[in-house]
Amino acid sequence: MTADPFVVIGGDAAGLSAASKCKREAPDRDVVVFEKGRWVSYAHCGTPYFVKGEVEQLTDLLSLSPTEVDDRGIDLRREHEVVDIDTDGRTVSVRAPDGDRVEQPYGDLLVATGAHALTAPVGGSDLPGAFSLHGLDDAAAIRAALEPPGEATPESLGGGDYLDPAVIDRYAAWEPPETVAIVGGGSVGVEMSEAFTARGLDIHLFQRSGHVLDPFGEAVAERVETELRERGVALHMETEVERLAGDDRVERLECAGGTALDVDLALVGVGVRPNVGLVADTPVELGESGAVAVDDCGRTAVDGVYAAGDCAEARHTVTGEFDWVPLGLTANRAGRAVGQTVAGDPKPTGDIAGTAVVKAFDQECGRVGIVDHERARQAGFDPVTETITTASRSGYYPGAAEIVVSLTADRESGRLLGGTIVGTDRAAVRIDTVATALEGDMTVDEVENLDLAYAPPFSPVWDPVLTAAKVLNGSLEETAGN
Amino acid sequence: MTADPFVVIGGDAAGLSAASKCKREAPDRDVVVFEKGRWVSYAHCGTPYFVKGEVEQLTDLLSLSPTEVDDRGIDLRREHEVVDIDTDGRTVSVRAPDGDRVEQPYGDLLVATGAHALTAPVGGSDLPGAFSLHGLDDAAAIRAALEPPGEATPESLGGGDYLDPAVIDRYAAWEPPETVAIVGGGSVGVEMSEAFTARGLDIHLFQRSGHVLDPFGEAVAERVETELRERGVALHMETEVERLAGDDRVERLECAGGTALDVDLALVGVGVRPNVGLVADTPVELGESGAVAVDDCGRTAVDGVYAAGDCAEARHTVTGEFDWVPLGLTANRAGRAVGQTVAGDPKPTGDIAGTAVVKAFDQECGRVGIVDHERARQAGFDPVTETITTASRSGYYPGAAEIVVSLTADRESGRLLGGTIVGTDRAAVRIDTVATALEGDMTVDEVENLDLAYAPPFSPVWDPVLTAAKVLNGSLEETAGN
Repeated sequence: MTADPFVVIGGDAAGLSAASKCKREAPDRDVVVFEKGRWVSYAHCGTPYFVKGEVEQLTDLLSLSPTEVDDRGIDLRREHEVVDIDTDGRTVSVRAPDGDRVEQPYGDLLVATGAHALTAPVGGSDLPGAFSLHGLDDAAAIRAALEPPGEATPESLGGGDYLDPAVIDRYAAWEPPETVAIVGGGSVGVEMSEAFTARGLDIHLFQRSGHVLDPFGEAVAERVETELRERGVALHMETEVERLAGDDRVERLECAGGTALDVDLALVGVGVRPNVGLVADTPVELGESGAVAVDDCGRTAVDGVYAAGDCAEARHTVTGEFDWVPLGLTANRAGRAVGQTVAGDPKPTGDIAGTAVVKAFDQECGRVGIVDHERARQAGFDPVTETITTASRSGYYPGAAEIVVSLTADRESGRLLGGTIVGTDRAAVRIDTVATALEGDMTVDEVENLDLAYAPPFSPVWDPVLTAAKVLNGSLEETAGN
Repeated sequence: MTADPFVVIGGDAAGLSAASKCKREAPDRDVVVFEKGRWVSYAHCGTPYFVKGEVEQLTDLLSLSPTEVDDRGIDLRREHEVVDIDTDGRTVSVRAPDGDRVEQPYGDLLVATGAHALTAPVGGSDLPGAFSLHGLDDAAAIRAALEPPGEATPESLGGGDYLDPAVIDRYAAWEPPETVAIVGGGSVGVEMSEAFTARGLDIHLFQRSGHVLDPFGEAVAERVETELRERGVALHMETEVERLAGDDRVERLECAGGTALDVDLALVGVGVRPNVGLVADTPVELGESGAVAVDDCGRTAVDGVYAAGDCAEARHTVTGEFDWVPLGLTANRAGRAVGQTVAGDPKPTGDIAGTAVVKAFDQECGRVGIVDHERARQAGFDPVTETITTASRSGYYPGAAEIVVSLTADRESGRLLGGTIVGTDRAAVRIDTVATALEGDMTVDEVENLDLAYAPPFSPVWDPVLTAAKVLNGSLEETAGN
């Protein structure tokens, strides 16, 4: 007799990666995936480009259709919400679409419940016309609101089988907005600035702190702020939005200092939090970050229960501690590893380095590791940062553009801690060099001596990362010498 | 009293990097650089783009002018050829422009004599109209021959103070060629195909082996060959050119098999060899490669004598053995390290990984480490290679293009040995990820778990390098399982 099924809660990146890998490695094992919504396995990071219009159809953003999931032998149940986990009885309680409760025994359980967009700090976020961007339903509703009245339908948006027609109809009836507020200058806020600009809107971006893209550090932020302003985005820095107001839809934005602005639409992107409500009453433990605590193979404190993706922690390669950085690759990779572990061949989920890239109009931004000095000191390091500006290619070669690289290291050991990059010419992918060096526990001296590629169309003789390492190394040596 | 001067033979990348670094670290030390030609510190790799016309002036390719070198306090003597080294007496013998011999004592000596283009295998390479591309004089002569009669002058080419007017005048008088033969399908041959195509010429490329770009492996070669053919370059593969013939200029190309072709101009790019003639009669030793043998700080077998750049070996990061891979970054870095060592603060020149990138029209190609199986076996490895084709960005994002990644690993240890990349969309710089992983002595398993960047405009969720590692790792595990 085979074991009880491998039950997965959540049908997105981590959940379906786990289900697919387990089924491939152990074809006889029953695998059941419960997804409370209709969508499965979609590219969340592509939604700004759907709103922008560069991606035509929502279905373009699906990695797998439900049919393809079925074809893999996975028992996928959409619109099935797991409402309770009984870790003693190894059973989950599920609300089916008809409202009935079903008890499902499990042999192994993966909690892959993802994260949700924070809106709480901003009052009125539940008004029509106030959106967050967390999933395809949000993206569809925003695009329906942007298109000429009556034009958008679930079918025209590529979401005929998935979208709630009532929501689309409501926003499709609206006159397109003219003035839009973006609350929050993180990746979503920056990407949506580009999307709304492409739609010809008047955009006001509100950021509570002094810089956009906080995790990317000042050198990146300054370039991006310049770019946003040049593109006509009005930046309201160090400005806390208190609430969105209006009668039956968002009409006004009010700030803590008393500033107010009439707006037709608002996008709130002030962060995400892990979906951990389901494990609150179970012995599954949370880490300090508030996400589910796991070991290197994604196992929680409870036997047979795993967690992966945006709801779970992972080990940070620089600090060696568990941390919460919800990103797409992490979810896919951790899910896949858990699937293999459940299939009987334990596999670590892999460390994370907090590697992230974002496009801000023509500026390509990257960050990895620990670049914030306070955070570095908390982790026991004595951080030193150097920032250089150089050419992306040989200076004489057409297309050479400025690129800015920051590297941060520990003064005593010379160990590389993190880095950031910004520039218009192939800047983003270069962050992978820094990410790989971090994973290799390299010192700045070792980074300076990397044999990186050179040819005039692609790089100067000294790659920008090498130049940054050279300068930072000089700084470290001076300190050591004095 | 200060020591005898630091004498440098060769005023290009390695030589001037060493001179500059030594002077900066030890300003009281006399530094003398002998350069037999007129040019110093130029970007050799930019010459194809000068011929193409994308770089207007030869002077655009100079990193430093002679005046700037003087300003650094370096005693630069151009058109001074070192003709003899007496390592017992610590003296070099120099032929000055007026033909006089000067004896110059040295405290430390750097041999940075570079490399020269091989032409020997091809008869008639000394005929007018037969060129190699090794330096700015060659580049200027070729461009003079391509321009309408009477148009090119040393001044118009940006080489007024440097070029030999007689050579430029001769080629400036020619009718522009219509049919050009390129002998050799290495990087120079491929880059010059692009340059000549931009000039509207009819191009025939002859390659002795079965593929162009041998060091880049088959997966890259196949894409590049397709690209070259699509651009109208006639490829003559497995065809050995025996000689170039003509009365007073190149008029015909003759192959070993009897094939002959009428041509107006020929470019011979069949490889380079280190310039080591000067040390032949000294106790300075050569390595197996034929280049000067050095230790990790660039020291030769003789006390006080260093070698760096295209004439010297360097340690290969994969084999741990000394090897000869003449490339721009290696020369700059090794020169700089020698300068620091001579100034009293010993610094390793850094390992090499054979990292190279080349542009073939729209194809960006990269290679690093050991990818040839025979070479891998010679170094004691049991090589396994996997090649994958994937998208350069999320498939739904505009601009996504095919990218091909090959990774090679050792079967037993799983250690990464090398890799290649080819594609039209930011493919080349991604080789740096592989180079960094090699320097970190990573296994394929470690590479598979790298936290590389993902955002739809820049990369798929699984970066192409990760996908290749995943597939290769699967292959290695299967082998281990059986």
